Amino acid sequence: MPRMKKIFLDVAAGVRANPASLHAAGVKAGRELEAARQLVAETLGAHPDEIIFTSGGTESNNLAILGLPEGEVIVSSIEHASVLAPAAARGRGVIILPVDSAGKVKIEKLAELITPQTVLVSIILANNEIGTIQSMAEIAKVVRQARRRLGTVTPYLHTDACQAARFIPLDVNKLGVDLLTLNGSKLIGPGTGVLYRRRGIPLKPLLYGGGQEGSLRPGTENVAGISAFARALAQAQKSCLKESKRLIKLRDYFIKAVKKNIPEAELNGHLSERLPNNINFSFPGVLGEQVVLELDAKGIAVSTGSACAIPKHDDSYVIMALGKDKNHAISALRFTLSQNTTAADLNYVLKILISIITKLKKTNHDYSSQFTL
Amino acid sequence: MPRMKKIFLDVAAGVRANPASLHAAGVKAGRELEAARQLVAETLGAHPDEIIFTSGGTESNNLAILGLPEGEVIVSSIEHASVLAPAAARGRGVIILPVDSAGKVKIEKLAELITPQTVLVSIILANNEIGTIQSMAEIAKVVRQARRRLGTVTPYLHTDACQAARFIPLDVNKLGVDLLTLNGSKLIGPGTGVLYRRRGIPLKPLLYGGGQEGSLRPGTENVAGISAFARALAQAQKSCLKESKRLIKLRDYFIKAVKKNIPEAELNGHLSERLPNNINFSFPGVLGEQVVLELDAKGIAVSTGSACAIPKHDDSYVIMALGKDKNHAISALRFTLSQNTTAADLNYVLKILISIITKLKKTNHDYSSQFTL
Repeated sequence: MPRMKKIFLDVAAGVRANPASLHAAGVKAGRELEAARQLVAETLGAHPDEIIFTSGGTESNNLAILGLPEGEVIVSSIEHASVLAPAAARGRGVIILPVDSAGKVKIEKLAELITPQTVLVSIILANNEIGTIQSMAEIAKVVRQARRRLGTVTPYLHTDACQAARFIPLDVNKLGVDLLTLNGSKLIGPGTGVLYRRRGIPLKPLLYGGGQEGSLRPGTENVAGISAFARALAQAQKSCLKESKRLIKLRDYFIKAVKKNIPEAELNGHLSERLPNNINFSFPGVLGEQVVLELDAKGIAVSTGSACAIPKHDDSYVIMALGKDKNHAISALRFTLSQNTTAADLNYVLKILISIITKLKKTNHDYSSQFTL
Repeated sequence: MPRMKKIFLDVAAGVRANPASLHAAGVKAGRELEAARQLVAETLGAHPDEIIFTSGGTESNNLAILGLPEGEVIVSSIEHASVLAPAAARGRGVIILPVDSAGKVKIEKLAELITPQTVLVSIILANNEIGTIQSMAEIAKVVRQARRRLGTVTPYLHTDACQAARFIPLDVNKLGVDLLTLNGSKLIGPGTGVLYRRRGIPLKPLLYGGGQEGSLRPGTENVAGISAFARALAQAQKSCLKESKRLIKLRDYFIKAVKKNIPEAELNGHLSERLPNNINFSFPGVLGEQVVLELDAKGIAVSTGSACAIPKHDDSYVIMALGKDKNHAISALRFTLSQNTTAADLNYVLKILISIITKLKKTNHDYSSQFTL
């Protein structure tokens, strides 16, 4: 995204001082930082004092989950590791909200799981592996109803929206969330993140030091990165419906073509309620990692599961959560469309993919028994 | 630092993938990351598996201090807020090692303070306000002797070396430290940091998620930033003695000139064991903040106390720790020499400074009573 790189460099060239310094350069950096905060707030329909800048999505998720007071946490079965792991680290056990075979959380179960002890419900807005988009406003309604029924101010609702910025309007009031995680990774590269925290939600910092970010995230602010992130986010949100429309056409074209040419291929995730740039197929009988390497040799970069998952080379817990078996999990492949992907690119990928899958099917069959870790 | 910016851009242009991805771009990013780790390790005389990349100095200090097991913590009275605050947050009370009037820690007191319950001693290598450099190898010797005497593996020794990279050789074995914090702020700008952790030192993460950085610091790595930081650090260390020599001449010239022209000016910190780029004077009877603003109007950027301190506009606890009074603390000014500072620059600053101090002395006298917070 060369335009964003230019913004980053312009800001970096102009802002060399600590925004807490009293001299002119410091004041300028401080203004740039507050302008970025204002822009993010406007983009999300929030107040500037509700925006906390962090080092990335992992830190924002951790701050939302570990920063809240004592209590139970409910998360979906397909959360990112940076939500699952801190939820587990709270040490009270984690209550898992299951998803259906398309990856949509079972909203009707949520009301049953919420108790007066539930402090947080955390549901990923759009899953990073299978792309399924959750009906967040409906989830928020269930959470609000539970609060009313129980007479509590909790649970709070958090969403990890890291995959969503380019494709889903992120108005925190329309989504109905109390906490929302965003990062710069998909916009300008890693190193910056945001946690939206609705006024009044109690949060303790994870790091201690200078009083930056309302004492919730100390450390000299990366003003250039934050500013570039804020502008990229605003721009991505402005064009998200148009960009979605364009990619959905390409996505659905590719999904149809794969199904037609590789009949045993099974789409993972929801057919329509999915990220416009996400395609995830299982090819039962082949090993996903092997396909990654063969495609890579032809200049095509795809992924198995999540690049962020741990342990590596494990089958995807996200695919398993859909009720699929190990054979589906280890043969799952994720294709991500970029701003530059064209129909011609997809036709090229399709051709190579068909030949690889055909070849591998002849030699491979059941890998699942080899991969019990 | 245009050369470092170029490195950052080159790496950023070449590395666009998640270093955990299996495809070629991911492998390349992974190699770049490990090369950076190797370079930092070599630069510090450490093993690559002892290098943890973080988002900055605040996070590295917090990880070192909050990540250690239960036990008492000893810190000097002039630590940075990002050491003092997490030490206090451990909730066991903090034991303060005092400093003398030049800001050198009272090493002879350290042995008395260490008990079998002491898990950590954390001493800033070079102070960010007054520039005093500690005799770390001697401190390390006292710590080792205490371990032997008590028959314990603790206390571990941590140093915040954020101010030191450009001026002090940072061989962890010669320094004798078990944990060492570095950041990119003074080299390439904010957003990257390192925690050196000697093999065997037990540490729990502060953030949870994917397994990055040996599960001690999850989150997709900012490979471009890390790589630029690693190269800048290696280069800074290579030229640190030469750069120190050059700046010490300028520093001492300025110190002498100020003393000669403003007789009541008092140097804060050690005359010779101080950062080559640091000059800190108190001008009793004037208000530091007022001088900052007046110098700023003439294009000269200086600081009162620390830009990172909280609460703002408080008197500097570092100056107070030297045994000086409030009048000294609120009149303290820090001048930082840059790579580009020349003798002519200093003469210009001196001329303006003399006229401002002379003017303010006529109108101001005792501000200390107004600043009880």
